Amino acid sequence: MSKSVNLAIIGSGVVGSAFLRQLSQLKDTIKYNVIYLAVNSRQAIIAQDYTPIDVAQYKSLDTEPILTLDKLTTFLKLSPKPVILVDNTSNAQLAEYYPKFVEAGISIATPNKKAFSSDISVWNDIFAKEAAPGGGLVYHEATVGAGLPIIGPLKENVKCGDNIYKIEGIFSGSLSFIFNKFSTTVASDVKFSDVVAEAKQLGYTEPDPRDDLSGMDVARKVTIVGRIAGLPIESPTSFPVNSLIPKDLESVATGAEFMEKLPLYDAEMQKLKDEAFAEGKVLRFVGSVDLKTKKASVGIEKYSFDHPFASLKGSDNVISITSERYPNPIVIQGAGAGDEQTAGGVLADTLKAAHRLAV
Amino acid sequence: MSKSVNLAIIGSGVVGSAFLRQLSQLKDTIKYNVIYLAVNSRQAIIAQDYTPIDVAQYKSLDTEPILTLDKLTTFLKLSPKPVILVDNTSNAQLAEYYPKFVEAGISIATPNKKAFSSDISVWNDIFAKEAAPGGGLVYHEATVGAGLPIIGPLKENVKCGDNIYKIEGIFSGSLSFIFNKFSTTVASDVKFSDVVAEAKQLGYTEPDPRDDLSGMDVARKVTIVGRIAGLPIESPTSFPVNSLIPKDLESVATGAEFMEKLPLYDAEMQKLKDEAFAEGKVLRFVGSVDLKTKKASVGIEKYSFDHPFASLKGSDNVISITSERYPNPIVIQGAGAGDEQTAGGVLADTLKAAHRLAV
Repeated sequence: MSKSVNLAIIGSGVVGSAFLRQLSQLKDTIKYNVIYLAVNSRQAIIAQDYTPIDVAQYKSLDTEPILTLDKLTTFLKLSPKPVILVDNTSNAQLAEYYPKFVEAGISIATPNKKAFSSDISVWNDIFAKEAAPGGGLVYHEATVGAGLPIIGPLKENVKCGDNIYKIEGIFSGSLSFIFNKFSTTVASDVKFSDVVAEAKQLGYTEPDPRDDLSGMDVARKVTIVGRIAGLPIESPTSFPVNSLIPKDLESVATGAEFMEKLPLYDAEMQKLKDEAFAEGKVLRFVGSVDLKTKKASVGIEKYSFDHPFASLKGSDNVISITSERYPNPIVIQGAGAGDEQTAGGVLADTLKAAHRLAV
Repeated sequence: MSKSVNLAIIGSGVVGSAFLRQLSQLKDTIKYNVIYLAVNSRQAIIAQDYTPIDVAQYKSLDTEPILTLDKLTTFLKLSPKPVILVDNTSNAQLAEYYPKFVEAGISIATPNKKAFSSDISVWNDIFAKEAAPGGGLVYHEATVGAGLPIIGPLKENVKCGDNIYKIEGIFSGSLSFIFNKFSTTVASDVKFSDVVAEAKQLGYTEPDPRDDLSGMDVARKVTIVGRIAGLPIESPTSFPVNSLIPKDLESVATGAEFMEKLPLYDAEMQKLKDEAFAEGKVLRFVGSVDLKTKKASVGIEKYSFDHPFASLKGSDNVISITSERYPNPIVIQGAGAGDEQTAGGVLADTLKAAHRLAV
């Protein structure tokens, strides 16, 4: 009889739906049995007797109120097979609960950045619980760069004795798109506000583009990769983040009003761009961690036309890792967002955990 | 008590020595006990009663004649703990034996390309044995790009439902160095033969540079990534490989004589380079697999100045993977050779296997 694991899946939004579809098409030597599926923040399909839920048909199955996190833990702890909790939400409350899940022997696979980029005490708690006897496993590849191989390889390099010197990256799809369009290797007078408007229209930004332009999402990702590389970053607000939101526009009431006033600041951005161009460089919005100076930062940086960051396309992410073994950095680039890509990253993590756990 | 696995390590050359040093410095929740260590092709340290060998002191320990592969299999099969065989050689005879090891439940971690790039029947045999109940696990990240994350992420993407359309890469450190120097984004009259001589002097090529210029090493790597992507490539000689060795120099007796005559062909290479430059392109020696046309090939290709392959530095490798989920390809670049990098890749594989196996 083939080995199996039980899955508890939370979230069936765009990433969650893609995950469920990919899971139902998966061919593997292990069986993946879903025993709990929260279809939204209130309702769940619950296999009270641990008989697998037919994921392909989940939309037509009866739901009942979701379990409280304490009751969910008890339910999963009593599972006759090892359990992986797949959190396809960006829920902070759920993320805060991870240490308790892991302590109870429940493994986690998730693209939810919250738990890994809040206060370092949460990070330390999660991984201390993972390392303790009987602790669950924790996989979170899709918290940075969606399905791109970043977190896993970085953790491996560190564990296998490499010393990381520096990490730099373009970690935001929307800001990648904006700067790739705004600042190129050929002279251009494209306006910053026009490019932001285009990115918003194409759905690359949040409804209020300030949520992207603030740099906070980048700061969260920098926090995660920095901690893995060995810098104990306190929180995503504990290092300099140079927001792209002009000071005077921080407090305007709506995203629409913000977009209306943004053109007032185009001249400033154009000047920065022209100065870079005169040096043979482009502007990029970058997160970086320097392990030698023990500093992290987020903001606009300049890169030569022949630098890998200068030739980035569309809304791709890129990360550059310089280390003792790689004085010429490892560079990984590609789509760092997208439902299918994120779901693929979470599924790959689920498989890795499953192949360690299945009985 | 902590979980553990037993290791049988073959090879203590440059990669093998780096592996042993990295292993002895590893901190992990699992214990790695070495029970067999072949220090060269004739002698081994054998823990007859499975009492771990002190790897840090291996150079001062008594050796005895190596076990035949049949006897080694029996010895490892009787191990009280799961066994990972780490093959740090490039031995073809050992590679041919992999299916028997895997069938016996012995797992493998190796940078040895031989088994994975010979006849497809060997590949099929290895992975059928791995998939069968009781089969050992097979990890071979370092067979392509040394420690770069290529094989693992590619296998995961395929398994998680992505459809690979195209793979292109610069898979040879020596040919990367040669073409990065020879053909650049600024006009140059650097001679091909001079660059080959420089690469040889710096130790980037084999003693006879024809072993690199033949393209066979690249063809082996193309065979591996192509098979993972879903193209059942028969062997590395079953598709077009455009060797860089001029026909008339294939049969000259020595590498020295070859180097002496190579300048006769500089004009030909210069012409190719000039033609590319006129189109705003550089020459690169590339291996590629097209899953749509089901074709693989190895040879010189042209790339625009703003293509990631054009800005490659030193002797770095690069791989570009275009797929359904990544129409803008995933690009991974960095050092694709080197003892520490290769050993790090093998050690990461060893850890992955160990965390699935340890009891």
